[in-house]
Amino acid sequence: MHVEIITIGNEVLSGRTLDTNFAFLARALEEASVPIGWHSTVGDTAERIADALRRALDRADGVVLTGGLGPTPDDITRKVVATTLGRPLQLDDTVLAGIRERAKRSGRKLPASIEGQALLPRGATVWPNPLGTAPGLLILEDEKPVILLPGVPQEMEALATAFVVPYLRERTGVAVESFTLRTAGVFESQLHERIGNLPQGWPGATLAYLPSYFGVDLRVTATGPDADLVRSVATRAHAELSARVGPVVYAEGGRAIEEVVGEALVAKGWHIATAESCTGGLLARRLTDTPGSSRYFERGFVTYSNASKTQLVGVDAGDLEAHGAVSAPVAEQLARGARARAGVELGVGITGIAGPDGGSEEKPVGTVFIAVSSPRGEAVRRYRFMGTRRTIRERAAQTALDLLRRELAGLPLDAKLEG
Amino acid sequence: MHVEIITIGNEVLSGRTLDTNFAFLARALEEASVPIGWHSTVGDTAERIADALRRALDRADGVVLTGGLGPTPDDITRKVVATTLGRPLQLDDTVLAGIRERAKRSGRKLPASIEGQALLPRGATVWPNPLGTAPGLLILEDEKPVILLPGVPQEMEALATAFVVPYLRERTGVAVESFTLRTAGVFESQLHERIGNLPQGWPGATLAYLPSYFGVDLRVTATGPDADLVRSVATRAHAELSARVGPVVYAEGGRAIEEVVGEALVAKGWHIATAESCTGGLLARRLTDTPGSSRYFERGFVTYSNASKTQLVGVDAGDLEAHGAVSAPVAEQLARGARARAGVELGVGITGIAGPDGGSEEKPVGTVFIAVSSPRGEAVRRYRFMGTRRTIRERAAQTALDLLRRELAGLPLDAKLEG
Repeated sequence: MHVEIITIGNEVLSGRTLDTNFAFLARALEEASVPIGWHSTVGDTAERIADALRRALDRADGVVLTGGLGPTPDDITRKVVATTLGRPLQLDDTVLAGIRERAKRSGRKLPASIEGQALLPRGATVWPNPLGTAPGLLILEDEKPVILLPGVPQEMEALATAFVVPYLRERTGVAVESFTLRTAGVFESQLHERIGNLPQGWPGATLAYLPSYFGVDLRVTATGPDADLVRSVATRAHAELSARVGPVVYAEGGRAIEEVVGEALVAKGWHIATAESCTGGLLARRLTDTPGSSRYFERGFVTYSNASKTQLVGVDAGDLEAHGAVSAPVAEQLARGARARAGVELGVGITGIAGPDGGSEEKPVGTVFIAVSSPRGEAVRRYRFMGTRRTIRERAAQTALDLLRRELAGLPLDAKLEG
Repeated sequence: MHVEIITIGNEVLSGRTLDTNFAFLARALEEASVPIGWHSTVGDTAERIADALRRALDRADGVVLTGGLGPTPDDITRKVVATTLGRPLQLDDTVLAGIRERAKRSGRKLPASIEGQALLPRGATVWPNPLGTAPGLLILEDEKPVILLPGVPQEMEALATAFVVPYLRERTGVAVESFTLRTAGVFESQLHERIGNLPQGWPGATLAYLPSYFGVDLRVTATGPDADLVRSVATRAHAELSARVGPVVYAEGGRAIEEVVGEALVAKGWHIATAESCTGGLLARRLTDTPGSSRYFERGFVTYSNASKTQLVGVDAGDLEAHGAVSAPVAEQLARGARARAGVELGVGITGIAGPDGGSEEKPVGTVFIAVSSPRGEAVRRYRFMGTRRTIRERAAQTALDLLRRELAGLPLDAKLEG
């Protein structure tokens, strides 16, 4: 079974809107072991949409179309699908009642055109949209599913998760179990070396290495006709993979490292303070991305100038002079000072050269010192990150979060595969 | 003339890699008035790539393929194109010499397979890659250009900018002039009302409204057979549009507002300090995104707890009690305190409710107070931003940057279309 995804919309075809809908759908379907064969993008043009649909029905075993289900005149997907498949639009009373109910609840005056969203191609099954007025639609055309989804990302994602993925997964007739282990602090090649041929012992399962500047995610997907067997393979794969890479795993599934750090802080009843130079507030921003972070994030210092390092967190002016602002003693004093001045249990300090200028032979661009201070003690580490100013800053913040996670968990600070 | 873009790569088809290459190419070609008719994505499979290429040659006037030009076994684009077009691969000595030269300069031992990148379909024109070993290739197949670009974004972008866009633009036979005015602080509907039918007076030119949470960009593209006429229409459009919306324009082209603020600070010889609560360091991070920002960014306070607001920048505890942390007096004292404690000319304070919890009837989620303090005086504004925790924080930071820009330029603080 191969599915084709068709994205519809001038804003996507013009490159103004990144097609995150496609990426979401493709990832969700891949995890459910529904293979994507093709992806096409067309503008809001009847002829192009019809052509893409016919072609997809010709070569794929199922089609998912996203976009063009809204109430404005350029939203023509429903109409084009109806014409192309010879299934005239018919008013669906239940959908209409739902639209009117939603309009009433919103208290806003909605344009009459919105009721056009209750006109559905004959024989379509309705998948109710929990977040909007345009439902998802399923049409079986010669046994091939044709699925229509709205282009608004949240609505598309809700419908894909609730209906599309389970439905297509069911149709593949195979059982699927998957899990993801998120690692930080080691390279893909090191993981590869450590894991070796392990996956060969997992019948029907594959291991994907997914690197980004947040680290390397390891995703295992087990599939097969026998659900019990698939489950047991996945369970064994989880145990064996964890035994090999456990020391560098910071989370499972889609959880971000700042959430893991936040939960550990709450669990210990600790608070945290940051002192950042080269990351300029990025670490504080990430720690406060999580809702409810005021339970553990006390304050942050963005100590960009040398004067601010001394005045705000008490970095010694002599050390700044002797070792430079980018140095181990300064990072340590940033962490220690942040912790002491804020009166909290955990302090972290970052100082480095994000570039593109400011590097030297001794301290090239990408050199970053990160220090942690807690009741367990103090430690500082030196790193050399590669990339642009942006990725160096991102990697520095991610590495600091991993150090904090290790400190909170009572683990050795250095990411090592063999522990 | 309609062009088709084909993205090649399993990592894109699986949704793991967002197709930013397509978005970049599409935007660049749109600005050059080269219309994109279709976009397709296929995996690293010979049959699928060949099929997509044949189909594109069938329906489009030109094809751009990205990806699959690297040295690894799954990079098969050159080979498939050679086979599909009946143009056997031939060794290009100049390209080979370039590859060897680059390998030597890098000082690294490169795999022998990298020399396979010098095998080109017969009759291909070489566009040298300034950043890597895989050159861009142009093949004219029955007068239709078939263009091959590497998938590494920086290399693709460099080749697209230097060769692809000018080449295809030339082929369209039309002259193009375009410009973008970036606005902040007003809604698309307000701009629409103010601009009205103005573009109808610009023969051959179109105006696109491009909203994001950084504001609304206005892009004008003038095209036509007569280059002089096109230029004069664009010049007039620029003058007329600027006259209507000038007061809310913060930049032209692709410049970010933090760069504009940074340049104004340098020009005045001023320094800045930030005090942020709900944005948690995001404003400091944006101000320090720009290389060289240490020339004007002195320090930042992330005053998340009430205690930190009082201790770090001297917010009055009584005001915190009486008005709450999210209030005009607290925002003012954050701005004033940041400026005074850092000993700089410009201070900015932000306090608000980013959500998803913590809202009340009087101060719902999205309520944000932003204050500015400078030798010109002090001011505070109240906003209500819509969206998720993330977008509320992004909008608050963007609005703060626009207030700073206005303060630095001596403009009235409030974004108003009619000056």
